[in-house]
Amino acid sequence: MGDPLGIGPEVLVKALADPALRSRGRWVIYGTAAAIGHAARLTGVRVVGDPDVVVLEPPGAHAVPSLDTHPAGDRAESGAASFACVESGIAACLRAGRGEAPELPAALVTAPISKAAWHLAGHTRFPGHTELLAERCNAGRTRMMFVAPNLRVILATTHVALSKVPGLLTTSRVLETIELGAETCRCLGVERPRVAVCGVNPHASEGGLFGDEEVRAVAPAVLAAREKGIDASGPFPGDTIFNAALKGRFDLVVAMYHDQGLIPVKLLAFDRAVNATVGLPIVRTSPDHGTAYDIAGKGVADAGSMKAAIHLALDLVGAG
Amino acid sequence: MGDPLGIGPEVLVKALADPALRSRGRWVIYGTAAAIGHAARLTGVRVVGDPDVVVLEPPGAHAVPSLDTHPAGDRAESGAASFACVESGIAACLRAGRGEAPELPAALVTAPISKAAWHLAGHTRFPGHTELLAERCNAGRTRMMFVAPNLRVILATTHVALSKVPGLLTTSRVLETIELGAETCRCLGVERPRVAVCGVNPHASEGGLFGDEEVRAVAPAVLAAREKGIDASGPFPGDTIFNAALKGRFDLVVAMYHDQGLIPVKLLAFDRAVNATVGLPIVRTSPDHGTAYDIAGKGVADAGSMKAAIHLALDLVGAG
Repeated sequence: MGDPLGIGPEVLVKALADPALRSRGRWVIYGTAAAIGHAARLTGVRVVGDPDVVVLEPPGAHAVPSLDTHPAGDRAESGAASFACVESGIAACLRAGRGEAPELPAALVTAPISKAAWHLAGHTRFPGHTELLAERCNAGRTRMMFVAPNLRVILATTHVALSKVPGLLTTSRVLETIELGAETCRCLGVERPRVAVCGVNPHASEGGLFGDEEVRAVAPAVLAAREKGIDASGPFPGDTIFNAALKGRFDLVVAMYHDQGLIPVKLLAFDRAVNATVGLPIVRTSPDHGTAYDIAGKGVADAGSMKAAIHLALDLVGAG
Repeated sequence: MGDPLGIGPEVLVKALADPALRSRGRWVIYGTAAAIGHAARLTGVRVVGDPDVVVLEPPGAHAVPSLDTHPAGDRAESGAASFACVESGIAACLRAGRGEAPELPAALVTAPISKAAWHLAGHTRFPGHTELLAERCNAGRTRMMFVAPNLRVILATTHVALSKVPGLLTTSRVLETIELGAETCRCLGVERPRVAVCGVNPHASEGGLFGDEEVRAVAPAVLAAREKGIDASGPFPGDTIFNAALKGRFDLVVAMYHDQGLIPVKLLAFDRAVNATVGLPIVRTSPDHGTAYDIAGKGVADAGSMKAAIHLALDLVGAG
């Protein structure tokens, strides 16, 4: 459900109110009955009580605030609850992957959490969902990927200082990103994805004029990917390649750092982009927005991105 | 005219064929009669011979290739000619600024050159027009600014390796960028520009979680700008601020590095963005595209950005 005082519960129940989506699966909500109940009343959607929806509460759920009783904002109790919910979801998906029980969920969709609330709850080690997922899944090479109707983007690096990006960009990291992105495209039905790889520097350094990352890491990774049979090309300048992708010339853009990929994603697909964490042993997607405290509890949150996130998760596990 | 074997001459004569534009000024073309003549025949536009248009040729103009006789591409002779043309234009504008002669041009519009051709001609010190302009004008604090109908963006750093950006970002550099951008907005009729300043790191570092540039340089520059009476705010995350600017909440976005500013400009205003070099003693604008060798000589180049560049130059000098 994400943070109970954000828009997570609301967009979740709104998404499940869509019959076309609801009928694609069965649903386990890791969240509090209070927060889900509030969202259900707010939106007029009946969720709890249906046989295809189960709510599993975190420990100490009775003490977790909801928008019935508390204003939107960061609270330790909310952070503890949203953290526990994510952990439970991960654990269940991992057990499902090991074939432990057929009723366990096959994919995880996470609603927005507040990092500040996680910090208040003492969970200070994780910048966000992705890092928690990587650790709990013991996954060494995860990547953030964004899927929108008109654009797919995968990031070689994520929540690190820009000054650390050049040092992190090795041939093997870029190559892994290309491979993970191409593999995900294939899961989504693009048999032979055309992959555009961005440079790091202005104009992709114009052959090394400003910066050596293209020559040292990106170009060798493109070559290695091609040797593995992936239709990769680049490095391309970051400021022109997204126009080419929009024109349909590529199925995937590999961006080297957070803003290089996220600026286009948010400009071109603000409410329709879905974040998938790839490279995990489980399928995980999430809407591409935050807790939106400013509109939480007002009933006006747009569930479009949450719906898209759930559909993408279902697509990735091959659901009907 | 830019590179004689690129689309510069073509977009130039196409722009001057527009009566609404043509009538706004008088025109000195620094270029070769051969290249301008070829472009005029290609497009059916009569330019040379009119009393309001003068063509001033560079030294050795007879040996400069044109698309009549040579294919599009990089040649030393072209690079030498386009370099000489820019130098002449700068010199004339500087003399005009000193009031030396009323017939001298008041503003410089540069068509696209090829850096590779400049290199072939031995002009290896300048990554592009901007650096040449800064040196010839003895200007210490120039910035690239992009003006589109729906967006204005100024860059704190330009053609440098991404790894050098954090080290270049000082409070004074960011402050100067804010000041130059705000001043240019005022020249364009925005009396009290609302200026959004980007952070450097993902999510503008979330208060220092990843990277210290926001805390160390950007936030102090925003504060200093406010103390000087500029309506500046930030640092904002690069991946969300451009949506806010598009919605009309800001008149100017200050980007910290090349791709952070150019990705949105090219996505949102591909053929309409104009590059202005601000902080010079002269007005200089240019279209936001390159030599486009692939379509040079075919008559299909879009003159929209060149027209917009000329209009912007006229606006900046207060022409009617």
